[in-house]
Amino acid sequence: MVKETLLLTIAVLGGTGKEGKGLAYRWAKAGYQVLIGSRYSEKAVTVASEIMELLEGESSIVGATNREVAQQADIVVVTVPYSGHREILESVKEVLTGKLVIDTTVPLVPPKVSRVQMPPAGSAAQEAREILGENVEVVAAFQNISYEHLLNDEEVECDVLVTGSSKKARQEALMLVEAAGLVGWDAGPIENSVVVEGLTSVLININKQYGSTHAGIKITGAQKPSAE
Amino acid sequence: MVKETLLLTIAVLGGTGKEGKGLAYRWAKAGYQVLIGSRYSEKAVTVASEIMELLEGESSIVGATNREVAQQADIVVVTVPYSGHREILESVKEVLTGKLVIDTTVPLVPPKVSRVQMPPAGSAAQEAREILGENVEVVAAFQNISYEHLLNDEEVECDVLVTGSSKKARQEALMLVEAAGLVGWDAGPIENSVVVEGLTSVLININKQYGSTHAGIKITGAQKPSAE
Repeated sequence: MVKETLLLTIAVLGGTGKEGKGLAYRWAKAGYQVLIGSRYSEKAVTVASEIMELLEGESSIVGATNREVAQQADIVVVTVPYSGHREILESVKEVLTGKLVIDTTVPLVPPKVSRVQMPPAGSAAQEAREILGENVEVVAAFQNISYEHLLNDEEVECDVLVTGSSKKARQEALMLVEAAGLVGWDAGPIENSVVVEGLTSVLININKQYGSTHAGIKITGAQKPSAE
Repeated sequence: MVKETLLLTIAVLGGTGKEGKGLAYRWAKAGYQVLIGSRYSEKAVTVASEIMELLEGESSIVGATNREVAQQADIVVVTVPYSGHREILESVKEVLTGKLVIDTTVPLVPPKVSRVQMPPAGSAAQEAREILGENVEVVAAFQNISYEHLLNDEEVECDVLVTGSSKKARQEALMLVEAAGLVGWDAGPIENSVVVEGLTSVLININKQYGSTHAGIKITGAQKPSAE
């Protein structure tokens, strides 16, 4: 028996929100086994069906509780508002050992969302690292993109800066960035996540000052190896 | 008697380094009265002559001590390595009241310059604000550009994100960004300077990982008003 695919299983926690749904859609389209997690499994099942419809039945996506999907996955992607960040991580912590966690969280503090205000750990990703401990690799990515473009199959004119707890973890995450049709860059150690998370507030400020809705960034002056 | 120009006088502290020299050259070329400051006035005079030569005598640039030029200027630009940041600000503090300070400092901590490591104040610019007090407007800008391009009249493929203590101060600084031939964006309050200063470490990391030498960023998805 030959296994049909060697691609990994990705659980998207909070996958019923627009961020998670957009990423789940792109990864399912690229052939990954995608699991949608939610606090309520019925909601996750509904969103899983919606994504399957978009893909015209070309892949099977499973919906279940955040904890169930986290348990079954190789890679766990966290897409929740910052207000639910600590709670969701603590609720799945014990099934994450040895897995890669990709944290998309931006620690915005309403109402001043255009002002950088980081938690005491330094950033949301560093907070995740504190909560999850040394046996879980944490990567921060996808904080700056506009998620609407993902579901609409539109080109996303914003690069993805990937910071994380090890180079290997960042490289794994960069493969998922490319699989989602985005351009990613290794932006260094997890301490650098403050820049990428904070950049979201800078982009919100630019949208406010210049009347735009989807300000983003592109890296200039560097080239990615064509093999990637 | 009509004053020949309404352009402001800019003092570039640490103006004998490559960053300061490049910016001084661009502003002198744009018609501003530029003063070069250094710890040693002879050194400042030499660099002022060098820039005048580059401009083929089309403008007169003065060199003197940091304190002398800070006293005479409307706008004071700080271009020193982080190790000299606090000292230079304290040495000119009492002549800065009511002036605009533009801080270009990146708080790199050798040898790990590709890792973001901010001072307790949150960023170099916030540290400047703490040192100088409420009566001095502080703007942070120009942290991410490659200065070699400035002196060579080359296009700089890196936008300038401007954060600062008030919108008026950011707007004044944005005029100087444009005058230097660069594209600038209002990136919000001074608390956001951590993003822009830290971005330098991210870009250093990208240079290291991808074999580039001048990685930069461009803002996408937003347009500047053509009047600017």
